[in-house]
Formats: sequence, C-alpha cells, structure tokens
Amino acid sequence: MTESGSATPRELLMAAIRPEILKIEKVLVRDLEQATANADPLLSQVLEHGILNGGKRLRPLLVVLSSKLCGGAGSGTGTGIYELAIAFEYLHGATLFHDDVIDSANMRRGKASVNKAFGSIAAILGGDFLHSRSMNLVGSLGGKEALQIFCQATNAMVDGEFLQLRNAQNYNISEADYFSAVRGKTALLIAATCEIGALAADAPVAKRQALAEYGLSLGTAFQIIDDLLDYQGDVVQTGKEIGNDFKEAKMTLPLILALEAAGKEDKERLLFLLDDRKTRQNGFQEACELIVKYEGFSRSRQRAETMVTKAVTGLALFANEKNSSTLSIFEALAQYVLTRDK
Amino acid sequence: MTESGSATPRELLMAAIRPEILKIEKVLVRDLEQATANADPLLSQVLEHGILNGGKRLRPLLVVLSSKLCGGAGSGTGTGIYELAIAFEYLHGATLFHDDVIDSANMRRGKASVNKAFGSIAAILGGDFLHSRSMNLVGSLGGKEALQIFCQATNAMVDGEFLQLRNAQNYNISEADYFSAVRGKTALLIAATCEIGALAADAPVAKRQALAEYGLSLGTAFQIIDDLLDYQGDVVQTGKEIGNDFKEAKMTLPLILALEAAGKEDKERLLFLLDDRKTRQNGFQEACELIVKYEGFSRSRQRAETMVTKAVTGLALFANEKNSSTLSIFEALAQYVLTRDK
Repeated sequence: MTESGSATPRELLMAAIRPEILKIEKVLVRDLEQATANADPLLSQVLEHGILNGGKRLRPLLVVLSSKLCGGAGSGTGTGIYELAIAFEYLHGATLFHDDVIDSANMRRGKASVNKAFGSIAAILGGDFLHSRSMNLVGSLGGKEALQIFCQATNAMVDGEFLQLRNAQNYNISEADYFSAVRGKTALLIAATCEIGALAADAPVAKRQALAEYGLSLGTAFQIIDDLLDYQGDVVQTGKEIGNDFKEAKMTLPLILALEAAGKEDKERLLFLLDDRKTRQNGFQEACELIVKYEGFSRSRQRAETMVTKAVTGLALFANEKNSSTLSIFEALAQYVLTRDK
Repeated sequence: MTESGSATPRELLMAAIRPEILKIEKVLVRDLEQATANADPLLSQVLEHGILNGGKRLRPLLVVLSSKLCGGAGSGTGTGIYELAIAFEYLHGATLFHDDVIDSANMRRGKASVNKAFGSIAAILGGDFLHSRSMNLVGSLGGKEALQIFCQATNAMVDGEFLQLRNAQNYNISEADYFSAVRGKTALLIAATCEIGALAADAPVAKRQALAEYGLSLGTAFQIIDDLLDYQGDVVQTGKEIGNDFKEAKMTLPLILALEAAGKEDKERLLFLLDDRKTRQNGFQEACELIVKYEGFSRSRQRAETMVTKAVTGLALFANEKNSSTLSIFEALAQYVLTRDK
C-alpha cells in the first residue's frame, strides 16, 4: 500500500495473480517431490535449493494465463495446465543452473547459487535432470507440436548464448546483433510459454500468433531491463551482484548504445576500460558515468518501453472477449516488466 | 583377417553391422546439418567436433536392430527408425560433453575433448542443444511412451552420477552400490534403446521386456569393461588417458573387489594411496599391482561375462523367428563387449 492508502499498480497486479501463483507453487512442490521420490538425496537437495527459491514463476504464469485467455482449462479445475506450465519453470531452472556455472556466479535470488552451494558438477547434472523432466512434461501433456515449439525455443536459447559468447570478444557489435541474441536467449522461450498455453486451449492460429508475439516483445523488454539492472540494480533487491556483465565484457544494450554514440575520445576510453580483466574490475563506476553521458541507460529503457507498448497493442483481438480481467493482467505484467527492481 | 586368412568373430560382426552403421552415420550427418542450418557457426563447429568423431554408434544400432528383431520398419525402407535411433547418439553425446567438463577430461576418442578444444562453456551449451534435439526426435518420432522411457532413463543417468558423486568420497562402498550406480548411469539407457526400438515396431510387451533386459545386462557388462579399460586399456586404442578413475578416487568394480578381499595391511595401503590427490597421482602402478593380487580385474571380468550370458539367454523367445541373422548380431554384440579394447 502507498502512504495515501491506495494500492499501487504493482500491488494490484500481485493481488490479481496471487491465486495462480499459489497454485503453480503447489503443483511445483508436488511434482518435484514425485520426480525425486526415488532419487539420490543429494539430487533432491540440489533441486529444492535451486527451484523452491522464491522465483517469480513468470513463465508458468504466462502458460496458465494464455490458456485462460483462449478459454482453456486454466479457467477450469483441471491441473493439467499447471503441470504443463511448471515445465517452463524447470527449463528456466536448468538454464540458470548452467548459466551460473558458466558465469561462475555466486549468488542467485539472494542466496548461494547451486554451483556455489553444491559445486559445478551438481549444478550441471541437476540442470540436465530438470531439462529432461521439462521435456517429458511438455511431450506428455502438450503433445508433439508443443514439444517442437519448446525444443526449438530451447535450441534458440543455446544458439543465442553462442552468439553472445562470440559477441563477448567483439566490442563492435550493433544494436541488431544484441536484439538477435536476446531473441534467442530469452524472448523465444517467453513466446513459447504464451503459444503453448494457447495451444493447450486449442486456440485458433491468429490467437496463438498474437500471444506468441506478445511473449516475444515482453521477453525482449524483460531482458533489456535485466541488463539495465545489472548496471543499476540494488544488490538487496535483485539478490545478484551488480556490474557482472561489464566485468565479463558482456556487450549489453546500455554499453552498445553508449559506444555507438560516444565521441572518439570517450569511445576509446570505454574500450580501454573493457580491454582487460583488471580495468574492467576497477573501471565499472567510470564506465557507468560514460554510459550515462551518452544516454545508454535511458535509451535502453526507451527501447523496452516501445516493446511493451507493442506487446499490449498486439493483444487487441482479445479485447472483445469476456475475459477482460485476464487481459488486464497481461497489460499489467507488461508494465510491471518496466518497473521491476529485481 | 587373421594370419590364417579366416575372419575373426569381431571382423564378422563388423561386416554384419556395417550397412546399418553406414545408414546411421548418413542420417546423423544429414540431421546435424538440418538442426544447425541457421545456428551460430561456432555451435555447428562444436557439434561436428563432438558428434562426427568416429563413435561406435552402438546405441542407434541397438534401436534399429531391436526394431528389426520385432519385425519393424528397420527391416524396410523407412528412415523414421534411423532418425529415432540417432536421438540416442545425441543424448550420448550430450552426456559425454557434460561428463568431460565434469571430469576435466582432455581427450575423447583420440582427439581433444569438446571442453579442451572449445572451452567448457561451449561444451555445456552444446550438450544442452543435443539434449533438447534428442528429446524432440524421440517425442515426435517415438510418441509419448517412448519419450517417457527416454526421459526416465536420462534422469536415472543423472541420479546414477549423483550416487557416484557421493560414492567418490566413500571408500567403503559395496559391489551392490556399484551396480546400482551403473544401472542408472549406463545400463538403463542401453535398455531404453532396445525397448524403444521394440516399441517403434509395435512389439508385444514380452518382447519389449526381453529386449529391455538384454539392454540392461549388455549395458552393465559394457560399463564394467569400460571401467577395466580405464585401468588396463591402451591409450592409443581407447583414445583416452589411463588411470583417470583412480586419480579421481572413483570407486569402480576392480578397486571395490580388491578392497573387499584385501588383508588388513594391503587394504590400508590401498586406502592410503587413495587418500589424497598426490598419492593417487603417483600410486597408480602400485594400486594396480594390489588389485591384481586380489583378483580385482579378473573377477570384474567374470562379472561382465556372467552379464553377457544373461543378456543372450534372455533373447531365447526370438529364437524361432525368421530373423536368425539379426539375432546372431545381438549375440555377437554381447561377445564383442567383452573383447573390445576401445
């Protein structure tokens, strides 16, 4: 609640999605218990640590809401859609497990990352387990077409990571390169959550496409904000260390826009700061100032705002449906992505 | 050919399976090309290095032959069974990519491992790509039941690795613990290849079970021999460094049997050699001598021979079929597992 007593847009959103989030969490806990019933105790521990950790559950929520928006079982009593939905949380978890090994990250959502707590072997294998479990759920509950969309998105994610891997040694990459990597790395999978939700509700192609487009734009905005938070976030809020991307010379949007706009001298200075591990460690603050000077942060945020507008506009064909409350959650989610601080 | 001019059993086997292996290889090359058609060039390179590397293709072969033994399309002209079959080579590849990261292995099949050649990030992500591709193939071509068997085997594999991970700090593990880990780590997946091949041929339950049992025994024997080769193999033949398991204090069968049988003094000496990284590095030769003294190697081999006999006996219900040539390949494969030197 705000000081004046009225609820903020975020509070309204959280209240609106709370029942679905609770159901998702319940199904997640139950499925994880079943999946690891006969598993090694260490494996169970690793998965609990990595999955039952206060995640936002944005991906499963999108599956459930997309199904609901298309009149699917998500609006009824069947748990099938929730079980299908948590597959995306598993896949997301698998990705985070492996990403944190790759980035040698120590923290995740305010506590030790899986690799920090259990070692990188456990993180790699635990990720593989989740990966396989997610595919099994999508294949059994969503059918062949859903599995195909899911696997294509997964492989695009790997492909996006490879692109980013190559881009990391290239300080010359363009805004288009960045968006191409983001599409694969993040956005296609968010699009897949929406599309598979629609598919589960037997929605016609136009609705499936509209939801997939929404997911693509939302996912892109989400990643831009993620990359902004890596520069400007609050470690207490985000639960992640700040400045990691710069220290690893990851070319994200604020830096790319600043480099494109900077005059010769400032560009050379930024490139110097990026040049080796030592200057990257010490030069983060100075780099931030240069990025501010060339509006790298504010223009990144503008890009995210444009994406969010596009996401919401594309859902116009649902406007006449009876489910205006679900539609307003989609709109609020898009706005939330812009204002999130963690 | 032997000196006398007659073919050895291995040569006969190789000649018998050659047409299938060539088809598998062809489908593998084509599918990999398609799967990476729009992928990052680095990703394509990583996958080619890791997959098109002279592997034995044992797993896809078992899928094709099992289908054939049950009268399935493997005996006809359809390529579906071959595409289903290569899913197992992808999954196997994914496992090797990740295992080599976990073990920091430098060599694989006589050349640089993926992590050595391209770094561990590429190996983790490349493995994830293969994992996802394999699930997609099994889900689309084999259907829900096949996907379920496949994913269960995959998750058992991870579970087996966790068990082994815990066992690595425990020098007190029993033969039963070892077989339990091998079942998950290797055997269940070989069983899945045979069962899914039978499933693809719409075989009745009894035949599916018989083939799954064959796979379990064959896979167990295969792993025992693998563990023996880690002690006794020829680096030129195996393409792998020797003594890795001991140097990493992995508790495999020869060591377990020796520890169980050794007198107090020799047992203490073996445990001393295992005790830290340095004594493990220098004590490999001495450990081998102690294992020989307590017949750890020969008794491990006996266990593998028993498994192979069990594997072949279990296929009796196929003996009256018209496909005696396929059945004899199954028998020869089981024998081959015992005599392989790489």
